[in-house]
Amino acid sequence: MAAVNSRPARPVLGQNQYGKAENRVVRITRDGATHHIKDLNVSVSLSGDMDEVHYSGSNANVLPTDTTKNTVYAFAKEHGIDSAEQFGIHLARHFVTSQEPIHRARIRIEEYAWDRIEHSGEGAHSFLRTGQETRLTQITYDGSSWEVVSGLKDLTVMNSTDSEFWGYVKDKYTTLPEAHDRILATSVTGRWRFNWTDDAQEAPDWETSYEDAKKHLLRAFAETYSLSLQQTLYQMGARIIEHRSEIDEVRFSLPNKHHFLVDLEPFGLKNDNEVYFAADRPYGLIEATVLREGCEARIPVDLTNL
Amino acid sequence: MAAVNSRPARPVLGQNQYGKAENRVVRITRDGATHHIKDLNVSVSLSGDMDEVHYSGSNANVLPTDTTKNTVYAFAKEHGIDSAEQFGIHLARHFVTSQEPIHRARIRIEEYAWDRIEHSGEGAHSFLRTGQETRLTQITYDGSSWEVVSGLKDLTVMNSTDSEFWGYVKDKYTTLPEAHDRILATSVTGRWRFNWTDDAQEAPDWETSYEDAKKHLLRAFAETYSLSLQQTLYQMGARIIEHRSEIDEVRFSLPNKHHFLVDLEPFGLKNDNEVYFAADRPYGLIEATVLREGCEARIPVDLTNL
Amino acid sequence: MAAVNSRPARPVLGQNQYGKAENRVVRITRDGATHHIKDLNVSVSLSGDMDEVHYSGSNANVLPTDTTKNTVYAFAKEHGIDSAEQFGIHLARHFVTSQEPIHRARIRIEEYAWDRIEHSGEGAHSFLRTGQETRLTQITYDGSSWEVVSGLKDLTVMNSTDSEFWGYVKDKYTTLPEAHDRILATSVTGRWRFNWTDDAQEAPDWETSYEDAKKHLLRAFAETYSLSLQQTLYQMGARIIEHRSEIDEVRFSLPNKHHFLVDLEPFGLKNDNEVYFAADRPYGLIEATVLREGCEARIPVDLTNL
Amino acid sequence: MAAVNSRPARPVLGQNQYGKAENRVVRITRDGATHHIKDLNVSVSLSGDMDEVHYSGSNANVLPTDTTKNTVYAFAKEHGIDSAEQFGIHLARHFVTSQEPIHRARIRIEEYAWDRIEHSGEGAHSFLRTGQETRLTQITYDGSSWEVVSGLKDLTVMNSTDSEFWGYVKDKYTTLPEAHDRILATSVTGRWRFNWTDDAQEAPDWETSYEDAKKHLLRAFAETYSLSLQQTLYQMGARIIEHRSEIDEVRFSLPNKHHFLVDLEPFGLKNDNEVYFAADRPYGLIEATVLREGCEARIPVDLTNL
Repeated sequence: MAAVNSRPARPVLGQNQYGKAENRVVRITRDGATHHIKDLNVSVSLSGDMDEVHYSGSNANVLPTDTTKNTVYAFAKEHGIDSAEQFGIHLARHFVTSQEPIHRARIRIEEYAWDRIEHSGEGAHSFLRTGQETRLTQITYDGSSWEVVSGLKDLTVMNSTDSEFWGYVKDKYTTLPEAHDRILATSVTGRWRFNWTDDAQEAPDWETSYEDAKKHLLRAFAETYSLSLQQTLYQMGARIIEHRSEIDEVRFSLPNKHHFLVDLEPFGLKNDNEVYFAADRPYGLIEATVLREGCEARIPVDLTNL
Repeated sequence: MAAVNSRPARPVLGQNQYGKAENRVVRITRDGATHHIKDLNVSVSLSGDMDEVHYSGSNANVLPTDTTKNTVYAFAKEHGIDSAEQFGIHLARHFVTSQEPIHRARIRIEEYAWDRIEHSGEGAHSFLRTGQETRLTQITYDGSSWEVVSGLKDLTVMNSTDSEFWGYVKDKYTTLPEAHDRILATSVTGRWRFNWTDDAQEAPDWETSYEDAKKHLLRAFAETYSLSLQQTLYQMGARIIEHRSEIDEVRFSLPNKHHFLVDLEPFGLKNDNEVYFAADRPYGLIEATVLREGCEARIPVDLTNL
Repeated sequence: MAAVNSRPARPVLGQNQYGKAENRVVRITRDGATHHIKDLNVSVSLSGDMDEVHYSGSNANVLPTDTTKNTVYAFAKEHGIDSAEQFGIHLARHFVTSQEPIHRARIRIEEYAWDRIEHSGEGAHSFLRTGQETRLTQITYDGSSWEVVSGLKDLTVMNSTDSEFWGYVKDKYTTLPEAHDRILATSVTGRWRFNWTDDAQEAPDWETSYEDAKKHLLRAFAETYSLSLQQTLYQMGARIIEHRSEIDEVRFSLPNKHHFLVDLEPFGLKNDNEVYFAADRPYGLIEATVLREGCEARIPVDLTNL
Repeated sequence: MAAVNSRPARPVLGQNQYGKAENRVVRITRDGATHHIKDLNVSVSLSGDMDEVHYSGSNANVLPTDTTKNTVYAFAKEHGIDSAEQFGIHLARHFVTSQEPIHRARIRIEEYAWDRIEHSGEGAHSFLRTGQETRLTQITYDGSSWEVVSGLKDLTVMNSTDSEFWGYVKDKYTTLPEAHDRILATSVTGRWRFNWTDDAQEAPDWETSYEDAKKHLLRAFAETYSLSLQQTLYQMGARIIEHRSEIDEVRFSLPNKHHFLVDLEPFGLKNDNEVYFAADRPYGLIEATVLREGCEARIPVDLTNL
C-alpha cells in the first residue's frame, strides 16, 4: 500500500456532461378535425469546454439547462416532430453549431404510442395510450458525424411452448432439472445502431425502420424453436441485420421471466404444462450484441443498471 | 382532556382479515397447437372467528396463508379460469364453505391481457402483453350472498380538443385563466358493481360485460364535449348504467393529467394549441359514483390512496 | 334476469369529491443561519353542492383545483407549518367556511423527514432525507366536527428470531411445515384516529403524539415473542391505545415479508437459520383494527389497494 | 444507399454476458442473543466461450443461471458476508476459476442497511431498515486482475441556502432569471473505483472505505458555497480522491431536484425564500468524473438510463 499512498493526491476533472432531462412534450398537429399526436420525453446532454464551471463555478460557458428545455418546446413548434429521430437531429445540431463551447450533444428520447378511440362522434381527436413498449432513440453529434441508436423497452412476450433447456454444465451447485417443454417469456430491451453518420448520406425512413425492426424481432421470437434464450436472442438480432440494411448493430438485454410449473402432486393433481407461477426475482439476464459482419460494436454493453 | 384521560384504556380487537396477496398465476389451455392464456394476480382475504390468534397467538382457527396460495394454483387446474370473476367465485365459495371459522372471503384479482404475435410459423402459442389497462375484479362472499365489483385501472386517454373550463368560482387565491379549448387527459380507474348477488340468479357473461363496459366508457369519453372533467366522468358512468343492466353502480377516480400550453411568445412563436408540457404533479383528482336510480351505493369512495 | 332488465335505467349521481392532489410544498423557516424544513405532499378533496357540474358541466359552484393548489402554497406562508396536522386543519377550515357550496373538506398529507448533515462549515442549512417511513395524516371537516387520522407507511422492520408459526388448520391443500424459529419481517402501514373532534377541546401535541406512537409500535414489534403476525399486530395497536389517550382507534396493514430458509443440503451444507431468500410475491397480508373499548371504528378497512 | 445495401448481410455475435440477476439474500450471524444482518441483492453476469449457445442453442458450455443463484446462497453460508465487496470477490473468483469456458465474471451487489430497534426486551435481534441510500458494488474478474467499483444511489440531500446561479450564457431561448440565493437539492448516484487490482496487494477495508467516502461526499456537499451544481459535484469527488488513497476515480450523476420559489404576489404575500414547489420533471442532470491525476477513467459515463 505504500506505493498507493505516495500517488499524487491531486484530483482532476474527467468526462462530464450536463443538460435538462425528461422534458415531456406533447405535439398536436391539426388536419381539420383530424388530429395527430406525438408524445415524447426528451433528455438533453451537452459536453465541451466545461472545466471552469467545475473548478471555479464560473458559468461563462454554460448554457442553462432551463434554456435547453425551452429549446425543446420551441423546436417542437418550429420544426414539428416527424419522428423522434429527426427531432433529436434538429436539437443536437442546434446545440453544437450555435454554442462555441459545446462540442457534443446527445439527445435521448422516449416515445409513447397512442391509438385512436373508435366512436360515433365527429372528428378524430380522441386517443388511447397503447401502453405497450416504449420506443427509444439516442442521437449524438460532435459537429461532424452522427450516431443514431434507436430501440425499445418493456415489450413483454411469451411462448407457451417450443422452448427447451438441457445439456448444460452441471457442477456441485447445480440442482435444476432439464426441461423439454417450458414457457419462455421476456421483457425486451433492445437498441440498434444505424449506419447513417453523415449529412451527405440519405437518411433512413425512421418510422418505417422502427416498425419493421419491431416486427422482425417479434417474429423471430415467435418462430424460433428455442433451446436457450441466447439462441432466441441471436435470432432476433440476426433477423434485424438481415432485413434492415440501415442497421449495423443490435443489442438486447433479455430478462428470463421465469414461469415455474407448479407442483400439484401434493393435491392429487397432474400439472400437464397448464398452471404456472410467474416469478419476480431472481431472473436470468441474457445480454448480447449482434453485428453486421465487419462492423464495429459501439452500443454500450449494459442497457440496464442491473 | 380530563374526560379523555379517564376513558377506559382497554384495547379490543375490531375488524380483521388475512390471506395471501398477489399470487401470480398463469394458466395455459392447449387446444392442439393453439394455446389460450389467462394471466392473473390473485389476492385472498379471509375473516371470521379470529379473535384468539390476535389475543393469544393460537392458530387453531387459522388456515395458513400458504394454504390459500396453494388453493389458488390447485383451483386453476381443477376449475380452469373461464374469467377472473368466475375463478374468484370458486375460490370464495371454497373458503367459506369448507372452513367453519371463516365467515367471509374476499378475492381480488388483477388480469393482464395478451395479444397474439403474428408470424409465419406453425401453431398459435406466441403472445405479446398488451400493456394497456389492468382489468380488476373483487368477489366477496359471506356464505349467503355475493358482491362482485369489477373494473380497471391505468387506461390512459386524451381528447386533444372539445374541452373547455370556465365560469368557475373566483376567490382571492384564484389565478387560473379560463380555457375555451384545452387538452383533456386522464388515466381511468373505475369500478362497477353487479346486481348479481345470489346463486339462484343467472350470472352475467363476465367477459362480454367487461368488454362492453370498457367500450362504453371509452366512447363516452370521446363523444362528450366537455365543460368539466366532472361532466365527462358522469357521462362515462351513465353510459354504463344505461347499456349494462347487470351493473347498478359505477365509481371513477380520474386524475386530470394536465397538459399545459407552453408559452412560446418569448421566442417570437405563436402556440396555436400545438405544443404542450405534460405535467406530473400536482394533478386534479375527480371522483364520483353514478348509480342506477333507487340503488344503494356500496363501492368505497377511495379507489386509490391519495 | 327479467326483473333486472325492467329496473329503471336512469343514472343518478352519488358521492363525489374533487380537488388538487399531490401538491409538493417545502417550507423553510430561517432562524438566522439555522434553517428548519417541512417537506409535505398535500392533497385536497372537497365535496358539497356539486350536482350541476356533473349533470350539465356548469362550474358555477366549482372552486378550481388550481385555486386549491394556490391556497396550499399561500397558507404555507401565512400560517407556517407547525405540523402536518395543524396545517391540514387550517386548510380544511378555510375551504368549508369560505365557500358556501363546499360542505366537506378532506386534506391528506404525506410528510418526508430530513436529518441534518454533520459538517464543519458555518450555519445549519444542510439536510439529508431520512428515507425511512413516510408520515401520513388525513384531516376531515364538515363545518362542525373534525376527524384526524394520522399514521405512516413503509416502515420496514424485522425480527431475526423469537417468531414461531404452528398449530394451524390443515386441509387438503396444506403443505407448509410448522416453524419454531423463523424471521418475522413486515413493512408497516398504520393509521390511528384521534378523539379530538371539536375546536372546544384542547388539541393534541401532534408532533409528540406521532413520535411516541411510532416508538410504541416499534417496541411492541421488537418485544413481542410472536406466535403469529396477528398477535404481533394486536400488540402494536394495543400499546398505542394504552399509552396515547388521544388515540381511540388504530389499524394496521402488515404484509408478511417472507424470508425463506434456503435448503443448502444439496450442497452438503447445514443452514442453521443463517441464510434466507427474501421473497417479493406472494406475501401474507394481515390487517386489523385495535379499538379503545367502547369506541366506534371509523378507519376504512383497506389501507392499501391489494 | 447503394453502398449500404451491398454490405454483407451476415450477422455475427458480439459481446455477450449472462447470469442470474437480483438474488435477494439475507444473512444472519448469531452472536448469542445478538444478531447481525447483511441484506443484499446480488446479480451475477458471466462471459467467455459462449458462441455456440447463441448460434446453435447448444448449452454444453453454459452453467445454468439457476446454478449461479444456488452458488450465491451456498457461499453466503460457506464464506459469510463480511462485506459486499469481499462476498463479490469470492463469487467472481469461483466462477472464473472453476469453469473453463467462463473467462470473466462480474458481480453487482446492492446492499440495504438496517438499524437496531431500541427496546427493553432481551437480546438484540430486532431491526429497522434505514431506508436511506442503497450501497452498491461491482466486482469484475478476468482470471488475472480485479476491478472493484463501489458507490451508492438514492442519497437525497438539500442545502436551503448558499447556492447561486448566474453569469451564464444567454441565447434566444433563455428566459431563466439569475438566482443569488436558491435551494440546491439532489439525489446522489455515485461510483468510485479502487486501485486494488491484484491479489498480491493488501485489500482495502471495504466497510471503512464506504463509510468514509460517504461522509466526505456529504460534507463536501454541505460545506461548498455553490455557484453551480457542477462545482459542488467536483468538490464531492475531489474530497474523496484527497482523503481515500485506495480510490482513483469517482463519478457522480446528480439530478438537480428543482425547488421553485412560489410566486405569492398575486395573493398579496412576499415569499422571502420560504415557500417552494418541489418539482418532479424535467430536472437538470449533471454528470462528471473526478480522477486522481495520472489515472485512467474506466467507469462508464452513464450511471443511469436517462
